[in-house]
Amino acid sequence: MIKLVLLRHGQSEWNLENRFTGWTDVDLTVEGIAQARHAGQLLKERGYSFDIAFTSVLKRAIKTLDFALEEMDLLWIPVQKSWRLNERFYGALQGLNKAEVAARYGEEQVHKWRRDPHEHPPALDSGDPRYPGNDPRYKDLTERELPVTENLSETMNRVLPYWSETIMQAIRNNQQVIIAAHGNSLRALIQYIDHLRDEEVTQLDIPTGVPLVYELDEDFNSVRHYYLK
Amino acid sequence: MIKLVLLRHGQSEWNLENRFTGWTDVDLTVEGIAQARHAGQLLKERGYSFDIAFTSVLKRAIKTLDFALEEMDLLWIPVQKSWRLNERFYGALQGLNKAEVAARYGEEQVHKWRRDPHEHPPALDSGDPRYPGNDPRYKDLTERELPVTENLSETMNRVLPYWSETIMQAIRNNQQVIIAAHGNSLRALIQYIDHLRDEEVTQLDIPTGVPLVYELDEDFNSVRHYYLK
Repeated sequence: MIKLVLLRHGQSEWNLENRFTGWTDVDLTVEGIAQARHAGQLLKERGYSFDIAFTSVLKRAIKTLDFALEEMDLLWIPVQKSWRLNERFYGALQGLNKAEVAARYGEEQVHKWRRDPHEHPPALDSGDPRYPGNDPRYKDLTERELPVTENLSETMNRVLPYWSETIMQAIRNNQQVIIAAHGNSLRALIQYIDHLRDEEVTQLDIPTGVPLVYELDEDFNSVRHYYLK
Repeated sequence: MIKLVLLRHGQSEWNLENRFTGWTDVDLTVEGIAQARHAGQLLKERGYSFDIAFTSVLKRAIKTLDFALEEMDLLWIPVQKSWRLNERFYGALQGLNKAEVAARYGEEQVHKWRRDPHEHPPALDSGDPRYPGNDPRYKDLTERELPVTENLSETMNRVLPYWSETIMQAIRNNQQVIIAAHGNSLRALIQYIDHLRDEEVTQLDIPTGVPLVYELDEDFNSVRHYYLK
């Protein structure tokens, strides 16, 4: 039985301020750090250990992972970071307060942007300071890979190659894996491994900083899953 | 001109307690954390940036690197960890207070153990809890690679393959490199790239948490070096 541990980053500054974050590289709050450490303590108490970790190139996920690994005395394991595990790119909504956006565009539209897997938030143009093409961490991405907006389906399209080419390979090599990532990159991954329909993934809310264990059969299909609490 | 940045970890708990540390995985002190953050601030102010980082599998070096990278907003770069960058393995001296060891064996012997590149500290046996063969982070090492004691010359023998096969390759690919490691693994590396004689490396004291810049020519020979202060 394969056990895969997923960990959404701890509370971030913009979770707290109720703003659309996307690829904006905001930090953890003090509460977020405490959640990350608690996740590590829980994993250690329950006897989990890891051979390798995967995370995004955003500090809220990297630091969540590091705090958890520190509690487990596993800072020494290899950590691979990829933009493919980043949060969904929220386009021109990034940085805006969710309540303000709702007042301007209506609750229904905001709900669609957040939950309809095929609905795009407004795109930003490549002259926008929020465009990732000028950030050195994305310098190896093709122009096609650099997003100006993303729906959940597109997030899934760039998460899945990393899952099937890199992470699954580690699991096949009998490595115990933890993935520290984001609400929507994890949602995309879960939709795939748990064969969820769009309506089901829409309902899926992953709490920040709580380890989510997926038990997979040898064909990488989900058998059961549960949070560690 | 190649610029290579070396960073000895910040003050550790056993630096403070004046104990032989070696591969014991002690943490940074509050002062050590401040040194690491200051190193990152200095590097950022002076316009340094990095594409990849190398460190040991010991938390005092890993955390020093992470604190420095956080100050530079570079937590997203790849970090490779290897036991080959670990501190020199201090055998049966690990954990002992340096003053107590001096009282027992004499100052001269302690000086030899610390500075003579061919002098071995007393070996520990494989039943000793300090023997690294039972630690999962060293599970891929051969029995020959697992040390029971090390002189500086042996430390150099296991540092250099990592330098020439892995780190030099990154530099050849035009990557800006930082190495966060330990007094003796850095000393071994410096002896090699700066062509120091044994007597010279004996005099070399690298302060904790201060970035040391080596400028290398295209054949990887040292042209000059300086600390950032």
